[in-house]
This record gives sequence, C-alpha cells and structure tokens, in this order.
Amino acid sequence: MVSAGNSGAVLAGGIFVLGRLPGVDRPCIGGSLPTLGGAGRAVLVDMGANVDVTPLQLVQFALLGEVYARRVLSVARPRIGVVSNGEEEEKGTDLTRAAAAALRKPMSGVHFKGYVEGRDVFAGEVDVVATDGFTGNVLLKTAEGAVWAFGQLLKRQIKSSPMASAGALLLGSALEQVKKRVDYEEVGGAPLLGIRGTGFVAHGRSSPRAILNALSSAEAFAARRIEDELSEAAERAAGLFEKNAA
Amino acid sequence: MVSAGNSGAVLAGGIFVLGRLPGVDRPCIGGSLPTLGGAGRAVLVDMGANVDVTPLQLVQFALLGEVYARRVLSVARPRIGVVSNGEEEEKGTDLTRAAAAALRKPMSGVHFKGYVEGRDVFAGEVDVVATDGFTGNVLLKTAEGAVWAFGQLLKRQIKSSPMASAGALLLGSALEQVKKRVDYEEVGGAPLLGIRGTGFVAHGRSSPRAILNALSSAEAFAARRIEDELSEAAERAAGLFEKNAA
Repeated sequence: MVSAGNSGAVLAGGIFVLGRLPGVDRPCIGGSLPTLGGAGRAVLVDMGANVDVTPLQLVQFALLGEVYARRVLSVARPRIGVVSNGEEEEKGTDLTRAAAAALRKPMSGVHFKGYVEGRDVFAGEVDVVATDGFTGNVLLKTAEGAVWAFGQLLKRQIKSSPMASAGALLLGSALEQVKKRVDYEEVGGAPLLGIRGTGFVAHGRSSPRAILNALSSAEAFAARRIEDELSEAAERAAGLFEKNAA
Repeated sequence: MVSAGNSGAVLAGGIFVLGRLPGVDRPCIGGSLPTLGGAGRAVLVDMGANVDVTPLQLVQFALLGEVYARRVLSVARPRIGVVSNGEEEEKGTDLTRAAAAALRKPMSGVHFKGYVEGRDVFAGEVDVVATDGFTGNVLLKTAEGAVWAFGQLLKRQIKSSPMASAGALLLGSALEQVKKRVDYEEVGGAPLLGIRGTGFVAHGRSSPRAILNALSSAEAFAARRIEDELSEAAERAAGLFEKNAA
C-alpha cells in the first residue's frame, strides 16, 4: 500500500486494511531526517501519527525503527536517541524518562545513546530518533520551516548585492545538490512500522516522482521480509516493562 | 538580573530572588525566533523552563508574551499562535486544544491566529509562539540544528567545487548578514515573564557582547514598567477558565 496525504489517516487505513503485527501496541510512521554524518539520514519514529503515547509505545517505536534502519537502510548497528530538552538523564518528561530507563536496560538489545537535541540529530549522532508523534511532527516541520526560511534569507541577500548575484550563479549547482539531500521528494516516502505487509506514506504534496520513489521504497521494504523481526522487537519492548526486567 | 546558563535554573532563581507577579501561576522564558516577515522575530513562550504545563499556564504564557511583544518589541497588535501538529482545530493534544479554545474566546482580548506549524512560525505569521517548555525547547534546538547542518552542507558543497569557491568569496558578506539576523548573540537574551522586576537569560555560551546586549535589553524592558499589565494579562487568562467565560 502506498498513499499520499494525512499521515494519521494513512496509518489508520493501513491498520484497518493490512492489520497489526503480533505484539505491536501502536504502529507508527518512520519519517526521514537528513543528517551530515552517520548514514546520511535518520529514521524519525513517530513522525506524527500517534499524538498521545505511553512509555511502552515510545520504546516500541524506537525498536521498530531500529529494525527498519538495520534491515532496510542497512545500518550495521543503529544508534537510538530519544528527543529531549537537554542531554542529562533527569531532563525530559515522565514519558521520556520512563522510555529512556527501559531502553537503557541491557535486555533492550539495542545501542541506546540517551537523549538527543536538534544539533545531535542533524549531525547524525543517532540513526533512530524516537519521540511521540506530536513532538516528532513539530520537529520535522520546524526543520523544514527553518531551512526554508534560511534559504529565503540567503536568496534575498544575494539579490540585494550586485557582487553576490555573480556568486549565486556559481553556487547554483552546489545549492541544487544540497537540495537533493534534504528534499522529501527524493527520500521515497515513510514506512508504516508495525503493520502486516508493506505500507508507505508519500508527502502530502507529492509529485509523480515522489510517488514513484515511494513505490520503489515499498518494493525494497517488502523484499526484506522483516515482519517476524518487527514482531520480535515489539515483544522485546513489552518485556522491558515487566517486573524485574534487567 | 541578567544571568547566563541553564534557563530552568535561571528562572527558578529569578522567582526566588525577585518573586512572582500577582496572578501568575508559572512564570516563563520568552525566547526569540527569527522570522522572514512580520516584526523580523517572534517571541517563543515557553522556551524551555516549564516542561509539564496546564492549559491555564499555556494561556498565561501566550498572554504574557503578547504584552512583551506589544510593549517592549513595539508590535502594534501581536498575533498569537499555538504550536501544533497541524492547523485544523481537532489536531494537537488535550493541552493545546484546551488552550486554543480559551484563546479563541473574545474575552481573551488578543489576536489569536490558531495553530501554527514550522513554516508559519519562520514566515512570521505570528508574533507570539505559545507552547509548553518541552516542545518549545525542541523547536528552538531543532531550528538551530537544522540551519547549522544546512550551513555545513553548503560549505562542503562550496569546498568541493573550484567554481563554487569563487562564489563563496562573493557570497561572504551576504552570509554574514544572514548570520546576524539569526544569531542569538545579537538578540540580547530572553526575558523572564511573570516575575517582579526584570530578569534576562543570556545564551549558555555567551560572549561578552551577548551579555552586553542582554543588559541593554534588560534596561529597555525595565524602562517600560509593564508589571501591572503582565499581572492583568495573567488574571485575564485565569478568567478564561472560569465557568461561562465567553
């Protein structure tokens, strides 16, 4: 299934049509964030479908995203970060602290780096960026908005200087290449994680090329046959919240 | 009071030393977001001091920020937006929906534009960006991180092309001017809103110039004598949550 539009509605449709994988409490959507280092992109879970989430659900997002990064994006040992308002353990909300405590347990089986902030995310310090869907959506839209505004400011400055307009011509190809790395058209849609089968959300304003890229992502995803591994990850997450889990 | 460092600690210190204004439930910190349009910057309340907030507190942040934008930044009729994961009224969390419902009442006395997302914020669609301190901090750090990463990508592209390095020289002054608009050094610190007297937080990595700018902001703030108006705004916010408030 590949669909463009409201991500929450697409996820609800995906759950209804395809069903949920065993052990998964709430499926989520894995957005893509461009990064400088690391694999060149990080998986953002959840990117906006689940606004109110429990610690278990947040940990499941993280572990589902980890399987996706490892098996589909071919990151050998994905590093996970939880979005917070500071890096120290005592920062964050009740939700982030409970999720981080669970992810820190050896039984989680993943490489948990702790809390992350904006610069860590875009520097590529982690491969999986875990957060509730409200914060994830704000993060994604803020990054898009800030980069868009910065680009507009640059353009204005270039236009206002006769010297700089020569520079603008020279810089054209460089800007084009930068755009390619951060443009959502190129990324090929966002996977629904935790449903049976394969579902992808394309950007709401999708061009034919964006849809095509989403279809080819979906094909690659399906070829990996990672359903059992996603289910196992969801059950491992649940285990972390049982009494005496280490 | 002007202090650099952990914003939550500075606010706690400000409340302890200077005291809270009558009617204010939780004082907050007003961050500064650069915008393309509007006044060239928007006030972000809360920028990170209050992680768990109630609808009343969020509405108070909005109204305190409105007084600051109007009286100190000289915006004639500040427009307020609440950060959300979409523009439709049914989006958001229980917190944002309750706060938005209160702000929409005529009795709020302010120009409420509804929900805002990243692009609206940086385009300058509103003058006051209201959100809880967790989301506000993530928004601020994400914007900083995304623009920083975009700048790094541009630099790399420029370096990798012999043509482009000539362009880089020409563009130097343009970039410098852009930097000036978005650089926190220039903004002059963030006001504590809702405490008696005047308190400002400078950036954690403050240069002497940043501290100087914060001091001059503090002086301008103090000269306006807006304490009574801030108190009145806080009480107006509380009134919106009384039964039968229209």
